[in-house]
Amino acid sequence: MAEARKLRMGMVGGGAGAFIGPVHRIAAELDGEIEMVAGAFSQSAERSREAGARFKIAPDRAYPDYRTMIEAERQRPDGIDFVVIATPNHLHLPIAQAALEAGIPVVSDKPATATYEEALALAEAVERSGLPYGLTHTYAGYALVREARSMCAAGSFGAIRKVAVEYLQGWMSGPIETTGHKQAEWRSDPARNGQGGAIGDIGTHAFHLLEYVSGLQVTALNATLRSVVPGRRLDDDCNAFVRLSNGAAGTLACSQVAAGELNELRLRIYGETGSLEWRQQDPNRLVVKRLNGPEEIHHAGTPYLGEDARAAARTPAGHPEGYLEAFAVLYREYAAALRARQQGQPHALPPTLPGIEAGVRGMRFIERAIESSRRQGWVEF
Amino acid sequence: MAEARKLRMGMVGGGAGAFIGPVHRIAAELDGEIEMVAGAFSQSAERSREAGARFKIAPDRAYPDYRTMIEAERQRPDGIDFVVIATPNHLHLPIAQAALEAGIPVVSDKPATATYEEALALAEAVERSGLPYGLTHTYAGYALVREARSMCAAGSFGAIRKVAVEYLQGWMSGPIETTGHKQAEWRSDPARNGQGGAIGDIGTHAFHLLEYVSGLQVTALNATLRSVVPGRRLDDDCNAFVRLSNGAAGTLACSQVAAGELNELRLRIYGETGSLEWRQQDPNRLVVKRLNGPEEIHHAGTPYLGEDARAAARTPAGHPEGYLEAFAVLYREYAAALRARQQGQPHALPPTLPGIEAGVRGMRFIERAIESSRRQGWVEF
Amino acid sequence: MAEARKLRMGMVGGGAGAFIGPVHRIAAELDGEIEMVAGAFSQSAERSREAGARFKIAPDRAYPDYRTMIEAERQRPDGIDFVVIATPNHLHLPIAQAALEAGIPVVSDKPATATYEEALALAEAVERSGLPYGLTHTYAGYALVREARSMCAAGSFGAIRKVAVEYLQGWMSGPIETTGHKQAEWRSDPARNGQGGAIGDIGTHAFHLLEYVSGLQVTALNATLRSVVPGRRLDDDCNAFVRLSNGAAGTLACSQVAAGELNELRLRIYGETGSLEWRQQDPNRLVVKRLNGPEEIHHAGTPYLGEDARAAARTPAGHPEGYLEAFAVLYREYAAALRARQQGQPHALPPTLPGIEAGVRGMRFIERAIESSRRQGWVEF
Amino acid sequence: MAEARKLRMGMVGGGAGAFIGPVHRIAAELDGEIEMVAGAFSQSAERSREAGARFKIAPDRAYPDYRTMIEAERQRPDGIDFVVIATPNHLHLPIAQAALEAGIPVVSDKPATATYEEALALAEAVERSGLPYGLTHTYAGYALVREARSMCAAGSFGAIRKVAVEYLQGWMSGPIETTGHKQAEWRSDPARNGQGGAIGDIGTHAFHLLEYVSGLQVTALNATLRSVVPGRRLDDDCNAFVRLSNGAAGTLACSQVAAGELNELRLRIYGETGSLEWRQQDPNRLVVKRLNGPEEIHHAGTPYLGEDARAAARTPAGHPEGYLEAFAVLYREYAAALRARQQGQPHALPPTLPGIEAGVRGMRFIERAIESSRRQGWVEF
Repeated sequence: MAEARKLRMGMVGGGAGAFIGPVHRIAAELDGEIEMVAGAFSQSAERSREAGARFKIAPDRAYPDYRTMIEAERQRPDGIDFVVIATPNHLHLPIAQAALEAGIPVVSDKPATATYEEALALAEAVERSGLPYGLTHTYAGYALVREARSMCAAGSFGAIRKVAVEYLQGWMSGPIETTGHKQAEWRSDPARNGQGGAIGDIGTHAFHLLEYVSGLQVTALNATLRSVVPGRRLDDDCNAFVRLSNGAAGTLACSQVAAGELNELRLRIYGETGSLEWRQQDPNRLVVKRLNGPEEIHHAGTPYLGEDARAAARTPAGHPEGYLEAFAVLYREYAAALRARQQGQPHALPPTLPGIEAGVRGMRFIERAIESSRRQGWVEF
Repeated sequence: MAEARKLRMGMVGGGAGAFIGPVHRIAAELDGEIEMVAGAFSQSAERSREAGARFKIAPDRAYPDYRTMIEAERQRPDGIDFVVIATPNHLHLPIAQAALEAGIPVVSDKPATATYEEALALAEAVERSGLPYGLTHTYAGYALVREARSMCAAGSFGAIRKVAVEYLQGWMSGPIETTGHKQAEWRSDPARNGQGGAIGDIGTHAFHLLEYVSGLQVTALNATLRSVVPGRRLDDDCNAFVRLSNGAAGTLACSQVAAGELNELRLRIYGETGSLEWRQQDPNRLVVKRLNGPEEIHHAGTPYLGEDARAAARTPAGHPEGYLEAFAVLYREYAAALRARQQGQPHALPPTLPGIEAGVRGMRFIERAIESSRRQGWVEF
Repeated sequence: MAEARKLRMGMVGGGAGAFIGPVHRIAAELDGEIEMVAGAFSQSAERSREAGARFKIAPDRAYPDYRTMIEAERQRPDGIDFVVIATPNHLHLPIAQAALEAGIPVVSDKPATATYEEALALAEAVERSGLPYGLTHTYAGYALVREARSMCAAGSFGAIRKVAVEYLQGWMSGPIETTGHKQAEWRSDPARNGQGGAIGDIGTHAFHLLEYVSGLQVTALNATLRSVVPGRRLDDDCNAFVRLSNGAAGTLACSQVAAGELNELRLRIYGETGSLEWRQQDPNRLVVKRLNGPEEIHHAGTPYLGEDARAAARTPAGHPEGYLEAFAVLYREYAAALRARQQGQPHALPPTLPGIEAGVRGMRFIERAIESSRRQGWVEF
Repeated sequence: MAEARKLRMGMVGGGAGAFIGPVHRIAAELDGEIEMVAGAFSQSAERSREAGARFKIAPDRAYPDYRTMIEAERQRPDGIDFVVIATPNHLHLPIAQAALEAGIPVVSDKPATATYEEALALAEAVERSGLPYGLTHTYAGYALVREARSMCAAGSFGAIRKVAVEYLQGWMSGPIETTGHKQAEWRSDPARNGQGGAIGDIGTHAFHLLEYVSGLQVTALNATLRSVVPGRRLDDDCNAFVRLSNGAAGTLACSQVAAGELNELRLRIYGETGSLEWRQQDPNRLVVKRLNGPEEIHHAGTPYLGEDARAAARTPAGHPEGYLEAFAVLYREYAAALRARQQGQPHALPPTLPGIEAGVRGMRFIERAIESSRRQGWVEF
């Protein structure tokens, strides 16, 4: 049955110069279940107002800061149903805490917080609040990532023996944080980004994807982090070995100095009798290889896919969906959980939607990777 | 400067069972410039109401038929700014005429009408109204289609000598119109679809893409249409030669019985010194081949693309955009023209946005292709 | 059982500047069944001697002309077992006739002759001689072309409805025949090449591949030939419709002015329930698409391929074979037929190896295509 | 100037059931500079005779063992010019030593020997003999591997920062060494294969390719070897970090239990301003990516390639060459060095041809990888 009204979202961050604000707005609204009605888009009141105008929200709901927004919105009869956090990492925790304490559910950009300790604090806050907390590991929203996940869960390739995940970008190959590039700037600043550089920004995506699809957990890792560009304060390149909960071995690589790569997130999983491969830059195809059979390309939007993958598609096969649609799948799932809650139904997040547990594991991953690199050896997870 | 409010859209058609209604809604709203507020979604009042609820529009704005919608909306102070037509083809003309006569601008699904004569009548109505008319040849919205178009306009490959466009699907390989498949049903019915089958449904896209990108016009064609599936009343497969305005030659193929193909729209253009290739199923890459140089892959979202392509992208390179985003580019351009008009500025549609001329040429193409096939030989365009 | 000695080959043509001479030598010798021992490599005695030295054949077996070679070799106890013809097209017939009359079997480069009438004469000569005649339609030697052929023969996709073959090159995009380019020179000269330009040089390959794989015959065609480069005396670009013996329709395109293409030979065949695609530039993969199943990539060298494909492979899967290996498959089959003949066994060429019938059909194709283009309409085949 | 006669080759090993014997024969003879005239193809005299007959060599030159062959051939006026060793690894050293002591140059399959100590002994023997020793790291013969090497040498991407090489196969995913599979059998037997399993069989190829193309040397490594299939006596899977002589970091992975992979050897090299990628299963394309420019595909056989790559091609662009042709390039270079030596000219192996140094480094790599895996940490190289 169709719902009476759209859910109302307020955004923190995502204002001028940010790539991620409009992306959250589009993704949230794409399936017609959510509308963005409020925001504290910048730490400058004026810039927040300007962003609000660009987003065409009512002028009185473009707030100068997130505390004001939370306070004002909770008073309104038509106040926001949830907050989305799209700020630099060091602000994730205080904003989330403030929202949760005010009884407002939270969707947050990843990584969950700036440090592992903060993540534990956040987990506690989420637990205490009883509110749904969603973490936008975007790539988990792709239909074929879900198909891959279903295949692993069904044991389609026998026991998993080997995984390889990599996330390679080249845009930080030069010292662009010194040239006024806003995103590079805060990402290279430990005070705003936390202790992880590439490992936090994209390594966490790779880590999440690996666990999300394989259904396994990393139990130990051996990572080498480097700051390749002279003068850079955080890591921009990482290679890691991982050990998985079933004894399988894996590799995880991430880099923001892989010159020439755009956004090369790629996952391969090898089992006893076959393997799969998925690439974010070619997201509507899932490659499956079996011992002694033809290679298979599974296409998004087809009837032979499993339920989870079919549920995540909007267009017929051959009509490509992309990054925004994957993002929107997460919002759609979050909206459904929120609706259930509003209607007094059970409202646990579905297992396909990353939540606070994923957030804590991601922060633990950063912390462990840094520790491993410091020690130049294996660390338990 | 940001605009004060979103433009308001009313939809005709696009209700239950239709793929294209939600696609129009998503595309129209994606860039935050338009909101769908009204609709006459079905020829059944009840189904229209149900669709309205699903779309979360106000119950009183889900109308039983398009005439009622037009009448009611023009009375409202917050009435719709334009209508989008997403019905079977035979209804395109009466709906468009009714809207234009009521002073309401129109966006229409392609093909423009059911027959060439209707297209001429529609062109007259558009002309008379002075209102902007947009035609959703979706593929014209892809960033790299625009890059290809810019390259041809700039003479990047010297004079164009040869073009090849094909649009292949396999979903009508069996007699599915006899099994209750709603879309196959009306598409196979001359009364609702017009005289063209595959040639109208997807051949017109191929034809438009060819002219749109090359900047050339078809001046003659030699087409063979077939109804491959026994009992089918309209063509499901077509091969055509075309002659272009600069003397170049080309081929155009379309089929809905190319078993195994999903939505294979592919364009190649050959000039004196190089060529380009674009495939809709891999839309974020444009292949450029030159005499005596490496093959080049131009990626969407990169800084080395031309202005038109850059304007059509939302996400950074490596974050795939797809069909819905391409569709949304057309709406975004249409919205800008509408805004200009409302503000008393010049408001001609930009040359990148297909309008009534494209609609008339498309219908002429169908008519000429059928005539050529009947005669088994060349016809002038 | 292993054969006692290698078969002895004599070559006509293939000397200085020619690409095809060394290719024939490598292909013939690759599988260890044949050795080249004699040749009349050029119409200049001196250049023939030089070529003989480069090929490391005995100096007295590098002949000044083919008649001398035939005469001398038939006298020798260790004379050649067969002749290979690698000259410009206008010499194919006289050389083949001379060899056959001398009782020497023939392998010939394609097209079989310079005109259709010559092809008929040659067919008569072959028939009269009772000797095996092989035609090197190289692409017929690829393992996956044979797999495709087997699939069609087995009806893997139901009745064939639609085929598309194209062979595109760009190397004649400029007037290179006027700049001393030897191969372009004779290929552009009707006296040496026959009446067909691109249609004869590569169109015949495309035509052969279509019939060879589909198992169908062309019964009518409608072709447009063009000489795109000003001043060129033969066609350099062709688009054709074809009708096939089972009523299916097809397209055949070939061009040597498709700027940027290297050697793009590509075949697609569509049946009722699926389709296949093969590209010469990616020859170790055969793409199979079925209604409602994942796309499949069949790899050369794998155990799941059919007998013909497995017989044509030398290396394990994943170790690419290429053009020379495909060529060598034809020689290997020819050698087996020759051995059988020498041992008094039945020695018909296997159906997988193109012979004089293919040669006659190819020349008919050229003649019919030219006629169709002249008439601007359909001609029976 | 053309040489008077072909060089004569004798083979040790490569008889019944072996894949690699015929491959060596084809590769050696492909360019018309070498002919195989003798062999000790098996440790069984009878099987050696049978193999000799299959290879069509004179019956008296199919020897029962390599010592006999060496002895007999050195007596003949038309004796072999060099020996090729195609046996299991543990026989490489004694055969090579015997040949070198008899004054006969050697080409050897990789890895050079069974242990690192043996490799040092062999290096001494080569040095003492003054004879050319070639090691068939096949992949070094691909034209585009050489182009990649030239690009790195020319600093096309600035300083190299990061490399990734992987070599993945799936054919040993099950315990096939227990089922009579000859190649799996000796490869899984430490007595015949040496201490390395996958690391020796394919890891050495990956290691060599990395150093060969990058021009850098591995200075330290951290490897994890596993025997994934229960009961397997040697490693079948390895992941390693490497440190390179210029401070760059890299990863090296090899596996023979990557189920579904055929022969996936892939190299990527990242510099300051761009990167390259080459895959053995698509060997005629070299992908080059630069910061802020289109991705480039460099095709084999084109005029824009460098000298080394052009020298390694035989066919025009678009006519694929493969594994056998790459192999043949090594033989061609070896033949040229041998010719020079026979003519009293300087005859050092060209830097493009792997020799004993590569052999020693490869064995050192195996030894170090095993040691690192034992220690679970970094070891100096």
